[in-house]
Amino acid sequence: MEKYIFGIDVGGTNIKIGVFNYDSVKNIKKFEIKTSKNKEISTILSDIKKFISEYVAENNINWNQVVGIGLGVPCPVKNGYVEKCANLSVNETNLIDELRRIFPAHITFAVGNDATLAALGENQSLAKPYDNAVLITLGTGVGGGIIVNGQLVEGSSGFGGEIGHMKVYDELVETCGCGSKGCLEQICGTAAIIKYAKKAMIGKKTILDSEKLNVKKIFDAAKMGDEVGMETVNRVAKYLGIAASILAITVEPDVFIIGGGISKAGPFFTNLVQKYFREYARFSTGKIPFQIAITGNDAGKIGSALLVKHHMKGNHED
Amino acid sequence: MEKYIFGIDVGGTNIKIGVFNYDSVKNIKKFEIKTSKNKEISTILSDIKKFISEYVAENNINWNQVVGIGLGVPCPVKNGYVEKCANLSVNETNLIDELRRIFPAHITFAVGNDATLAALGENQSLAKPYDNAVLITLGTGVGGGIIVNGQLVEGSSGFGGEIGHMKVYDELVETCGCGSKGCLEQICGTAAIIKYAKKAMIGKKTILDSEKLNVKKIFDAAKMGDEVGMETVNRVAKYLGIAASILAITVEPDVFIIGGGISKAGPFFTNLVQKYFREYARFSTGKIPFQIAITGNDAGKIGSALLVKHHMKGNHED
Repeated sequence: MEKYIFGIDVGGTNIKIGVFNYDSVKNIKKFEIKTSKNKEISTILSDIKKFISEYVAENNINWNQVVGIGLGVPCPVKNGYVEKCANLSVNETNLIDELRRIFPAHITFAVGNDATLAALGENQSLAKPYDNAVLITLGTGVGGGIIVNGQLVEGSSGFGGEIGHMKVYDELVETCGCGSKGCLEQICGTAAIIKYAKKAMIGKKTILDSEKLNVKKIFDAAKMGDEVGMETVNRVAKYLGIAASILAITVEPDVFIIGGGISKAGPFFTNLVQKYFREYARFSTGKIPFQIAITGNDAGKIGSALLVKHHMKGNHED
Repeated sequence: MEKYIFGIDVGGTNIKIGVFNYDSVKNIKKFEIKTSKNKEISTILSDIKKFISEYVAENNINWNQVVGIGLGVPCPVKNGYVEKCANLSVNETNLIDELRRIFPAHITFAVGNDATLAALGENQSLAKPYDNAVLITLGTGVGGGIIVNGQLVEGSSGFGGEIGHMKVYDELVETCGCGSKGCLEQICGTAAIIKYAKKAMIGKKTILDSEKLNVKKIFDAAKMGDEVGMETVNRVAKYLGIAASILAITVEPDVFIIGGGISKAGPFFTNLVQKYFREYARFSTGKIPFQIAITGNDAGKIGSALLVKHHMKGNHED
């Protein structure tokens, strides 16, 4: 009798749901449903419950075959507990308890931060997964996840791996969305990149049009040697290199994995990040390789399913 | 029949040797021998072998009672392997293999970086040890160790926890001993502190004498409200606060432990570090407490003995 794990990645817009077989944690089916507009965790969980119940019924699956449910959420998570969350409406709630309330008791549940779970999913999807890995995701926000000795780094209260808010520069005085200053995200987030390019193009020759600017156009211009494009992309790569150099002498991963929309710029971009990284890397840590994320939007689902499996193995050993 | 672990901390000047009972890893005796002037690892290990052999003979201990030997060295260490080391003469050597060559085969060996083992020792010596801890040691150099999920963070090749070389500022152009620039050690190491105070006192009223300056005098002057003393100590505290704020959103420890000579300045200093830390801390991570190291010079020995015990438990579970 086949056993299944559901690996779920809750985003602000969509909820990605993957059906995995238990033995190899292989993703056999994927679905996407809308995230409830009110972003209430109770609505989100009951939408997930409804989806899984229908899936189970339609596919003649016995609930006993559903052995695990893993959930990634865009919130700081510590052992399933979310104190507060900027992206969903959830406060001081243990999401594992909430899952237990609505699903059958035999199921093993696991909950984690989406980016941290994505790090687990990405690393495990490599031909040869590493013991120590850092994922940096570049999009509207700059996120990340850290794996140390094969385990998620949640930290004391779920803020482990919040790489986007590393303080990496002093010179700017603007305040980040997090309330602090000098965050990596203030240079490498999409809004910051566009803003910088708009300023950089003043008085310079460029193929970029300040009215129709987006990150892809900036990176494409850089690839073509455009001065403003290159200046902008170099700045992003430099500060990512600095952040990586700090991570390299604190957690020293075996690999840096670059994900998110910007990673589509490919080796052109990762090579540039690696160039700056080597410039700033201490001792012999400059040899740490950079890879582009390969699972696309699946990393969070895969990580959620893997975390369930880790938990099940952990319990088994007790 | 009592079983023993030897916990050893090899320094550039002295080798500290602790005898621990196996069951509770309690330090029952401590000794210190000189580190061989040539700093050759083979000489160091044979001096240790000689000491332990004599101790065993003099105390009528059967070698079978010696179940473990743990060794802390001032080098990057990965699973016992040292690629190269600035402080001892040792290259591309697995120190566990070296210990196996000279000691009886039934003994369990463990080797680690001294500061990382000190983090383990300090944390485990607290009334209630934490799962996640960061030790920052302030002396001639700035060192440190990171514990995540109860485990040492060695990193990919032993550079995990090299906190003194986090890049925390841009403005200075001098090169650090490590070959890079902007290192925490370049502000918080003793030489840097004295250098800064000497410069700061030019044209200012101060009780400090630039000819007879040391770190203790600078901190004592600060405690008495001396302007130059305060300016110097504030700068050290500020950059430690920044470094801690970065660690707080990457590994997010449950506690920061401050050790080394400067920690003798007590709460006057840690409170100042914590003030700056809170200023720079992201999200709610500013609540992480700061403690002063309590084991003094014993942390490395304790950590070495504990690592042996961890290894023995790990093997037992296999």
